[in-house]
Amino acid sequence: MVRRSGRRPGNQDTRTSILEAARASFAEKGYDKASIRAIAGDAGVDPALVHHYFGTKEKLFLAVMNAPINPGELIPQALEGPREHAGERLIRLAIGVWDSPAGTAALAVFRSALSNEWTARLLREFVVTQILRRAVGEIIEDQAEAPMRTALVATQVAGTMVARYVLKIEPLASADVDTIAAAVGPNIQRFLTEPMPEVFKQS
Amino acid sequence: MVRRSGRRPGNQDTRTSILEAARASFAEKGYDKASIRAIAGDAGVDPALVHHYFGTKEKLFLAVMNAPINPGELIPQALEGPREHAGERLIRLAIGVWDSPAGTAALAVFRSALSNEWTARLLREFVVTQILRRAVGEIIEDQAEAPMRTALVATQVAGTMVARYVLKIEPLASADVDTIAAAVGPNIQRFLTEPMPEVFKQS
Repeated sequence: MVRRSGRRPGNQDTRTSILEAARASFAEKGYDKASIRAIAGDAGVDPALVHHYFGTKEKLFLAVMNAPINPGELIPQALEGPREHAGERLIRLAIGVWDSPAGTAALAVFRSALSNEWTARLLREFVVTQILRRAVGEIIEDQAEAPMRTALVATQVAGTMVARYVLKIEPLASADVDTIAAAVGPNIQRFLTEPMPEVFKQS
Repeated sequence: MVRRSGRRPGNQDTRTSILEAARASFAEKGYDKASIRAIAGDAGVDPALVHHYFGTKEKLFLAVMNAPINPGELIPQALEGPREHAGERLIRLAIGVWDSPAGTAALAVFRSALSNEWTARLLREFVVTQILRRAVGEIIEDQAEAPMRTALVATQVAGTMVARYVLKIEPLASADVDTIAAAVGPNIQRFLTEPMPEVFKQS
């Protein structure tokens, strides 16, 4: 492998040390409680160096997960725009990513979460609690409903991924994105914005 | 472990040989093309002995998969009855099984399908194509729509399982079955019986 110019072996070792410390810290404490300061301490470097290499905690996390995309940018973008088509935009985004060259890596992270407790926890805390729930909160009225609506949206998005890319159930596995958006979009929309009195009467 | 009376070691060996031959045959040929006759041949026993120990091919398959339940009996039962509540009955059945003592074993089969190509193929061929699609066919009008409607139902059922039991997304993970049925049932119902002209115009 050709080493990129300007990156010395020492830097690569530092990056690796930081990533290892971050992986251990996220696994032990979860996304919320892990801190750049503590990760830097574990790696034996200055926190400024962690910021220099990775930027924010979010980006450090994405590097640890080998994430091919940044859902923290993509999901809020998809949910912006006319509220009544947010469900369709969300599933179009998901299919678009998974059908793209980055999809193989996204599938690897997802499969890992399905068989590995700490990846599952981090996917839940990061993608669902941090990003998706915040984006859902922007478009719904009653914020008390945000956690359940977010979880329900996650069932339909994760289920589409499992059926199409993991179990490869036809004709869904070969369907084009317009067909899937027409089929699944309105169901995500119900989870996002339609009244569900029987679901929320207890809350 | 105490051996049950009436089951001699020799019988146990024969059972094991049949299960091993069946596992290999299902993995190589898929559910449809595997035959009791060929499996018996591979195990070096008479086909009648396979029937004696395991009954039908379906039951042999369930034994190979260590399936804790028989979806071939449960799913058609759930879809019988008033057509307009079939979606709710289906998700109640799924949650009921997964919350029961058999749920741990069901989760193990499901996790295996998520990380293992042949388990995925068999889950797809057996549960989806053989059982769920046939049951869906019973309650829908246009049989040409059965494969896609079945795949869509599978997205919502599998997604609920992933979100509740694997990713453990709250408040869904702790919700009672009535809440989940009220939330998810109508979405499965749409996939089962509501017109979806934009999905089926191409077919």
